[in-house]
Amino acid sequence: MTEFSFRLIATDGAARAGEITTAHGIVRTPAFMPVGTQGAIKGVHHADVRASGADIILGNTYHLMLRPGAERVAALGGLHEFMGWPHAILTDSGGYQVMSLSPLREVAEAGVTFRSHLDGATVELTPERAIEVQILLGADVSMQLDECVRLPAERGDIERAMRLSLRWAERAKRAFERAPAGRALFGIVQGGDDQKLRDASARALTDIGFAGYAIGGLAVGETSEIMRQVVAETAPALPADKPRYLMGVGTPADLLAAVGQGIDMFDCVLPTRNGRHGLAFTRFGPINIKNAHHADDRRPLDAESRCPAAREFSRAYLHHLFKAGESLGGTLLSIVNLFYYQDLMAGAGAAIPAGRFAHYVGATTEQWAARRDMAP
Amino acid sequence: MTEFSFRLIATDGAARAGEITTAHGIVRTPAFMPVGTQGAIKGVHHADVRASGADIILGNTYHLMLRPGAERVAALGGLHEFMGWPHAILTDSGGYQVMSLSPLREVAEAGVTFRSHLDGATVELTPERAIEVQILLGADVSMQLDECVRLPAERGDIERAMRLSLRWAERAKRAFERAPAGRALFGIVQGGDDQKLRDASARALTDIGFAGYAIGGLAVGETSEIMRQVVAETAPALPADKPRYLMGVGTPADLLAAVGQGIDMFDCVLPTRNGRHGLAFTRFGPINIKNAHHADDRRPLDAESRCPAAREFSRAYLHHLFKAGESLGGTLLSIVNLFYYQDLMAGAGAAIPAGRFAHYVGATTEQWAARRDMAP
Repeated sequence: MTEFSFRLIATDGAARAGEITTAHGIVRTPAFMPVGTQGAIKGVHHADVRASGADIILGNTYHLMLRPGAERVAALGGLHEFMGWPHAILTDSGGYQVMSLSPLREVAEAGVTFRSHLDGATVELTPERAIEVQILLGADVSMQLDECVRLPAERGDIERAMRLSLRWAERAKRAFERAPAGRALFGIVQGGDDQKLRDASARALTDIGFAGYAIGGLAVGETSEIMRQVVAETAPALPADKPRYLMGVGTPADLLAAVGQGIDMFDCVLPTRNGRHGLAFTRFGPINIKNAHHADDRRPLDAESRCPAAREFSRAYLHHLFKAGESLGGTLLSIVNLFYYQDLMAGAGAAIPAGRFAHYVGATTEQWAARRDMAP
Repeated sequence: MTEFSFRLIATDGAARAGEITTAHGIVRTPAFMPVGTQGAIKGVHHADVRASGADIILGNTYHLMLRPGAERVAALGGLHEFMGWPHAILTDSGGYQVMSLSPLREVAEAGVTFRSHLDGATVELTPERAIEVQILLGADVSMQLDECVRLPAERGDIERAMRLSLRWAERAKRAFERAPAGRALFGIVQGGDDQKLRDASARALTDIGFAGYAIGGLAVGETSEIMRQVVAETAPALPADKPRYLMGVGTPADLLAAVGQGIDMFDCVLPTRNGRHGLAFTRFGPINIKNAHHADDRRPLDAESRCPAAREFSRAYLHHLFKAGESLGGTLLSIVNLFYYQDLMAGAGAAIPAGRFAHYVGATTEQWAARRDMAP
C-alpha cells in the first residue's frame, strides 16, 4: 500500500508547488478539487472531470452517510469503486453541512445531533462516527469533525466552537488509528475572524499532529478581505512540510491570492454552480453567457482553450442552450469552468518553480481586466 | 455538392437494409434519429450521440423558428455549424408541434396561425414558410408542413386534414425548388386510422413525387395494434426506391415491427425522455433503475454493451444518482438508451442482408422476455 505523503517541490515567496502521493495516484499542488457532494460532480461526467486535469475530487460525509449510506457504499467496494472514480478522493467531515443544511441541530461535547434534511430523522454525528463513515467510504483524505460558525459571530461563540473542534480533533485522531494503511487525516483550524484564536487553533492542532491541515470556517459570510487576511496570517502558522487546504474557497482571484499565501488545496462549488447558472470563467474574465449580446456571437468562449467545450461551441449556441432551458448548456459551462480552474492551478504550479508566481498572477489578473475578448 | 440518394441494399421479406447519401454523410438504414428538438439532444453531449452510432439527428422547425430564429441560425452558418453537428440533420416541419404545443391555433387553406408557446405572439406558418425555415436551417432532409389530427377522430376530420396536407405537399414541393442542391424533401402520408384515406394519400404523394415518404399522424393516441396495422398496410403503398420514415415511433418493439413492415427511418423522444425518468432499455428488456432492489446491485446494466455507461457504472450507483436527484443519472441512462436504439437498428441492418431478420426479431424479443439479468 502506498503511504500518504507530501513533497514540497518549490517555493516562490510564500507560494508553494508540491505533490501529494496517495494510494489513488499523485495530486499535483496547488490543487483544485471539484465537489462531488453526493458521489457525482453535478451535471458532469467523470470522464470530463478527469480530462479537465483533476487529480482528486471531494465527497461529503454528511450527504453520503444519509444517502446511500456509508455501510452500503462500503459493501459496494467503497466510494472509488461505487462512483467509478479510481483517482484520489477527499471527504469533508460534514460539520459544515450540519450547520448549513440541518433544520435542527444540537451541539454537545459528545457530538452533534441533527435532523436529516432528507427525511427529518434524528441522526447523531460524533467525531468517532465521522471517522468511521470516512473509513467506510474509503477516502484517501479524511477530515476531522469540526463545528463551523457563521460569520459575523461573537468572539465567545467563535472561541467555544474552536475549543470544541480541538477536542474533537484529538478524538478524531484516536479514532483514525483504526484506519487502513495509506489513508490520511487532516485537522481543521477554526477561530473565525479572530487571529489570536486562529493561531491558538493552529498551534494546538500541530501539537496533536496531522497529515495535513485545513483552514475551515471561512467563506461563511465574511468579506473577501477578511478571508484573505485570515489566510495570510494563518497559513504561516501551519507546518511547512504538510499540505494546507483552504476549505470552500472560492473565485479564481481568491485562489490565486491564497496560493500566494501558501495554500496548497482548494474545493469550491463555484465552477459547477456558476456554470449551471450561465457564468463561464475564462482567461478573459467571467462571461455571463445569458446576456443578450451573445445571441449572434459566432466566437467560441476561448479558441485557444485546452477545453473542447470552450473551443468547439459558439457563444451564440451556448446562449441559446440557456435560453432554451437545455441542461446541456449548464453541463458545457461546468466543464469549461472545471478546465479553467485546473488550468489556473497548473499555471501557478508551473510558475512557482520558475520563480515567476507574482508575474503569473499579474499577467492573469491583467488579462481578466482587459476583457480583450469583448473587442469588436 | 453530394446529391441526396437512397440505395436499397437488401430486403428480407418486407424488411429493408439500405443507405441514404447526404451532403453530411451516409445514413445507414434502418436508422434511428435521436431527437434534438431545440438544437440539442436533451442532456446528452453531441460526442456521446455520435459515439452511439447516430448518422442523423432530428431538429424541429417549430421550435427553432421561434427560438433562436431561422434567420439567426442561417446567419450563424446554418444548424450544422450552429450546434456543432457535422453529420446529417432532418428537420420536422412543425405540424405536429403546432397541434401539441400551441394554446390556440387556426388552420386555414393558406396555413396555420398559432400562438407561440413561448411568448404568446401570433405566428403564421404556411407550407412555403416551413420550407423557407428549413432551407435557412440547412437541413439535409426537410419535411412538408402537414396537419396532424389526434386519434381517435371523425373520418370527416381525418379526411379534411389529409386532403389539406396533400395540397400543402404540392405547395411545399414548389417552394422547395429554391432549395440549394443536395437537399431533400419528404412528403407525409396522413389519413389517421382509415386505410382507404392512407392509400389515397400515399398515391397522391407518389404522384407529386418526393425524395422520401413519411407516415405521419401516428403515435397520437391510437393503440399500438392500430399503429402497426396502418404501417403494415401503408408501407407497401409507398415507392420501393425511396426511404420510408415512420414519424414519432416508438418503443424497441415498435421499431422492430415497423422495420419488418418496410420502414427505414425513425425518430422518437423515448430513449432520452425515459432515460431522464430512470428507465433503461437493454438487451434484457427495460430496467427501472429507481426500483429499490437496485440499491445494492453491483452489476452494470449490461457488462457486454458497447456503451461505456452501461458497462462502467453499477446499477447501485445509477440508482443512487436518481434517488439523489443528480442529473448525471438521467444523462447516463439517456446515453445507454441511445446506444441501445442504435444497436437495435444496426442488428436489424446486419440481419436483413443475411436473410435472418425474423430470427433476429425472435431472438431479441425472447431475450427481453427471459429477463435473464434478473437471475440471482
